[in-house]
Amino acid sequence: MTINRQWLLAERPTGMVGEHNFTYAETPIPEPKQDKVLVKNLFLSFDPAQRNWMEDREAYLPPVALGAPMRAASVGQVVDSRHADFSVGDLVQTTGCWQDYVVAAPGEGPMGLVKLPPGVTPEMMLSVLGITGLTAYFGLLEVGQPKAGDTVLVSGAAGSTGSFVGQIAKIKGCRVVGIAGGPDKCKWLKETAGFDAVIDYKNEDVNAQIAQHCPDKWDVFFDNVGGPIREAALDHLNLRARVVLCGSIAAYNSESPIPGPSNLANLTINRGRMEGFVILDYMPRAMEAIEELMAWVAAGDLIYQVDMQEGFENIPATLQRLYTGKNLGKQLLKIG
Amino acid sequence: MTINRQWLLAERPTGMVGEHNFTYAETPIPEPKQDKVLVKNLFLSFDPAQRNWMEDREAYLPPVALGAPMRAASVGQVVDSRHADFSVGDLVQTTGCWQDYVVAAPGEGPMGLVKLPPGVTPEMMLSVLGITGLTAYFGLLEVGQPKAGDTVLVSGAAGSTGSFVGQIAKIKGCRVVGIAGGPDKCKWLKETAGFDAVIDYKNEDVNAQIAQHCPDKWDVFFDNVGGPIREAALDHLNLRARVVLCGSIAAYNSESPIPGPSNLANLTINRGRMEGFVILDYMPRAMEAIEELMAWVAAGDLIYQVDMQEGFENIPATLQRLYTGKNLGKQLLKIG
Repeated sequence: MTINRQWLLAERPTGMVGEHNFTYAETPIPEPKQDKVLVKNLFLSFDPAQRNWMEDREAYLPPVALGAPMRAASVGQVVDSRHADFSVGDLVQTTGCWQDYVVAAPGEGPMGLVKLPPGVTPEMMLSVLGITGLTAYFGLLEVGQPKAGDTVLVSGAAGSTGSFVGQIAKIKGCRVVGIAGGPDKCKWLKETAGFDAVIDYKNEDVNAQIAQHCPDKWDVFFDNVGGPIREAALDHLNLRARVVLCGSIAAYNSESPIPGPSNLANLTINRGRMEGFVILDYMPRAMEAIEELMAWVAAGDLIYQVDMQEGFENIPATLQRLYTGKNLGKQLLKIG
Repeated sequence: MTINRQWLLAERPTGMVGEHNFTYAETPIPEPKQDKVLVKNLFLSFDPAQRNWMEDREAYLPPVALGAPMRAASVGQVVDSRHADFSVGDLVQTTGCWQDYVVAAPGEGPMGLVKLPPGVTPEMMLSVLGITGLTAYFGLLEVGQPKAGDTVLVSGAAGSTGSFVGQIAKIKGCRVVGIAGGPDKCKWLKETAGFDAVIDYKNEDVNAQIAQHCPDKWDVFFDNVGGPIREAALDHLNLRARVVLCGSIAAYNSESPIPGPSNLANLTINRGRMEGFVILDYMPRAMEAIEELMAWVAAGDLIYQVDMQEGFENIPATLQRLYTGKNLGKQLLKIG
């Protein structure tokens, strides 16, 4: 293969993101300069925040430029190295973007360039030890501050981040209630991921079910979703409860703004706190999390679920799966 | 006088509170038992939270019972004492409610029973040294955590709490931008209360004006109002900014829920925090605040503005002034 296949951002989205936002292109394989390596992408990571990166607005990362390959985390293999610390054949995590090949270097791009630790598979690296595992770990423990005995409510619970949040909360001695869409996801959360209770927002009255499954209200709400679920949750917060504002996926593909919760006054009455965070801020502390996450995985206390798609041609459609609720666990794609 | 005039809560409000929610009554003057005192109310305090106390829902204080005198803080004079620490003639602050006479005791009711410190007038006690002064002090300093050089945005700025928030922020070396309704309030804030900039929400585009007057965005937003002003403010928060959720007066008299801000995701992107608080939690620390507030008043750094109405018959109408934006500064009523 001598060409570098790419999916370029062609049109900024309004409403649901889809194939029409991207253009397929073929370019020459780039050549790494001194202190850089050439990586062949093997697996791409799909993350809800990607929808935000496509918009032309200031955020914690600059927007993806029109005509540039779509930004994505990846695991790949070094195929050419001009950097003393990397050898051909190394498996690495980097910001590979939607293309076959990327030139990368440590400290460059949001993901930098790191070798996979021994025994760590690409699936592990891009899920429980990657952005979603770290997001769950630092978001829950640092922002949510759960104590043993607390009730922790999680929205988007069957997504990768949500499923880790619930399991880490269980490890910390909390009672965990998850909100997810559809009976399959709910069954998996309860029977496999060990959640104490699950609410199917597609088939149940979320507000009433939160009341039922959180008889002592909730102390931490880890919110990946926003929208009406956030409003329902805010009717049931305990004194000094914490809302971890991780994501607002319900709004990402909306053509017009979705109204916020009409009951923020409940935060005042209950002395509650709602706090946002961005995982990139915690990257300097990633190793402490990775060590603990690996130990929990090894002990069988933390499982990771991967939803693996395949084929370069399916990349844009795979992104959409995140916003239509198709994925169970971490959405990945094997380029093949 | 041998009767105790009262305004009783007759009907829980839907929509704007008014005279129709209350009934005038006359009852015998109560008699204090051992360790209690009889207080003749002289001045009543009017506070936005009173609207919430009229509703039949769980909150940080129980709802006012139907048929009971409306709850209110007051300053009055002891006219009969069965308590060793209080003498006839003492000026005291207590939860006098809407009536001529109340039986009170230290530690009872939300306001307890405290003597006015020497040299402190009823106007001072019920404004800068009372609930609104303490709310501004602890809400801004403990929840908002302003640092010198920060930009502090205040809604409801010409209300009692808001005007103290802005002035305390100035004392702490912050740049202060206030939002208030109408040219008179804005002029007073700028020329008398020393705000750096003021936005007239009735006559200006709040979102555009925040952008203009907060060129470095805001670090603390002390929000008394909620509604569209909260949403506009959330478009301009700085990294790690704090929203002090003091009140949501825009929603208190609404017949249907007012949508919340559609842009809470800005808290995530900017690692912002939104936190509610209830001043009653800080009452054990009231003396430290009162000492500092008195010193600032004595030094001329902190002014208090009182909007004094008069007459027992005008009590219900005076409450409404808070929600129609008529008051400049602390709303009080002299019973006379």
